[in-house]
Amino acid sequence: VAADRRPHIAVVGGYEVDRDTLAGAEEVGRLIAGAGAIVVTGGRRGVAEAASGGAVEAGGLTVGILPGRDRAEANPWVQVAVPTGLGDTRNALVVMGADAVIALAGQYGTLSEIAFALVAGTPVVALGSWELALGGRADETIERATDPTDAVARALRHSARR
Amino acid sequence: VAADRRPHIAVVGGYEVDRDTLAGAEEVGRLIAGAGAIVVTGGRRGVAEAASGGAVEAGGLTVGILPGRDRAEANPWVQVAVPTGLGDTRNALVVMGADAVIALAGQYGTLSEIAFALVAGTPVVALGSWELALGGRADETIERATDPTDAVARALRHSARR
Amino acid sequence: VAADRRPHIAVVGGYEVDRDTLAGAEEVGRLIAGAGAIVVTGGRRGVAEAASGGAVEAGGLTVGILPGRDRAEANPWVQVAVPTGLGDTRNALVVMGADAVIALAGQYGTLSEIAFALVAGTPVVALGSWELALGGRADETIERATDPTDAVARALRHSARR
Amino acid sequence: VAADRRPHIAVVGGYEVDRDTLAGAEEVGRLIAGAGAIVVTGGRRGVAEAASGGAVEAGGLTVGILPGRDRAEANPWVQVAVPTGLGDTRNALVVMGADAVIALAGQYGTLSEIAFALVAGTPVVALGSWELALGGRADETIERATDPTDAVARALRHSARR
Repeated sequence: VAADRRPHIAVVGGYEVDRDTLAGAEEVGRLIAGAGAIVVTGGRRGVAEAASGGAVEAGGLTVGILPGRDRAEANPWVQVAVPTGLGDTRNALVVMGADAVIALAGQYGTLSEIAFALVAGTPVVALGSWELALGGRADETIERATDPTDAVARALRHSARR
Repeated sequence: VAADRRPHIAVVGGYEVDRDTLAGAEEVGRLIAGAGAIVVTGGRRGVAEAASGGAVEAGGLTVGILPGRDRAEANPWVQVAVPTGLGDTRNALVVMGADAVIALAGQYGTLSEIAFALVAGTPVVALGSWELALGGRADETIERATDPTDAVARALRHSARR
Repeated sequence: VAADRRPHIAVVGGYEVDRDTLAGAEEVGRLIAGAGAIVVTGGRRGVAEAASGGAVEAGGLTVGILPGRDRAEANPWVQVAVPTGLGDTRNALVVMGADAVIALAGQYGTLSEIAFALVAGTPVVALGSWELALGGRADETIERATDPTDAVARALRHSARR
Repeated sequence: VAADRRPHIAVVGGYEVDRDTLAGAEEVGRLIAGAGAIVVTGGRRGVAEAASGGAVEAGGLTVGILPGRDRAEANPWVQVAVPTGLGDTRNALVVMGADAVIALAGQYGTLSEIAFALVAGTPVVALGSWELALGGRADETIERATDPTDAVARALRHSARR
């Protein structure tokens, strides 16, 4: 058997983010690939592109779960493109099957990916992303990482448990 | 033409919530129906059931967008049942086409519905639901209502604008 | 309880069809509504519009499961509009929860609705629609109706069994 | 850039098929992989498993678009597993983004994949699969292949055109 099915780590975040976030995403991608895991993203620009680029540079495998119907909308670092035609609803699929999700800064799309990961029970590691509270109490299910190395280490720990 | 296509207001919230939330949901449903609008929910129990029940009592029309494939999983107050077979991903569909969403207390499923409404640009009126912040700044897109009457008034104002 | 949840009959067919097909669809809608059942369609033009129009004329209730995100893309006879944002994949949802599907002439979209109904186990009644064969043997699961009256009678028989 | 994004060929067919079909699927997988293309399937058993196994044996890359939420439901030859949680509706996604679809024998699930490929405009090459007719005229959009070598050659010709 293909006993070597590798961990799948989703990396989510915004299209338009600052340089530090992009650098962090690239480092996250590089570290995931270096550990032999697959990088899953939404396949477009911003955080998804930076993380995929970092992974390819480190010799990794990258998957992009796309909103549209055309593989051509993937960024150039996506090796396996999965068009869904589901629009933004594909956000649920980006995180559904991952061992863990690393969430960087992003807007409502990123929030929806965090929310869907929480619904699906996929562990979420946040690196400067959304904070949530209900009835004045902060959510404690999301893990807070201090830097890319910490984020990837936390994410991979979950893949080992699966 | 069926010039009378009525406003569609989505009501979202948890399966297991306290009595006050259920009473609030029922009142929300009653007020929406009283204003001639359609109540759209996820079609199951808790907030969805209370809101649908309130709407039916007031002579309204109720729609339930279901996670499974069987109409039988709808609560008894759902008149138009739309099975999707999409699982929790159907949360995106509950809020996508509404004029506005009224969000009561709930867990991650409710959070995902709020997030998807924000992605889709559907106005969100919260009645004691999730609070969100990014980089320490509270989100200000979600409107905060003080009670069911205020929530429904705010939601209907958006339907008038559409 | 809303013990009166009515049967849901899906009517599918093409956007661009001949006059006879449109007249048949209108009659199908009228007969379904006359029997107190709900007409579910894909909500756009052609067969969906004719069937919805016939149903509204007969005082019935019409539901349109839309490919896009905007209720405005529904034809004027759709009373309950359900935008999905799923594109053509929404075809699966049009037929999934119905008691039975009546399929009129149409192109590949109609074929996909027939196929999904067969996958979901929803009875299919064809009125001049696709014929299927596997290994040279014609499919016998699809019922063939002779006219709108026969088609609706067959469809309602399935709703009684559910 | 990852200029080497490879063609994606979808292979669809039934769960329970005869030995000849399984042998054909395995050969199809082997030939696709030998040509440097990625094999995309629904990720479960039968034709999907045989095609994926053939591809892995030939050193290829395999992707499985799964109906459920868990990567564990993939067959052992799937290297990149994409859980969707969409149930049978995921059939639309299996074929949506491929350069071409090779359809072997199968039941209604396979028919739905052929139908969705036709809707999406993805070329379909059939190897002993469904025959379709409308108004007594056989559909001529589906290409008929004589054996696995012919099927893969036809599919790859479409990927070259894209």
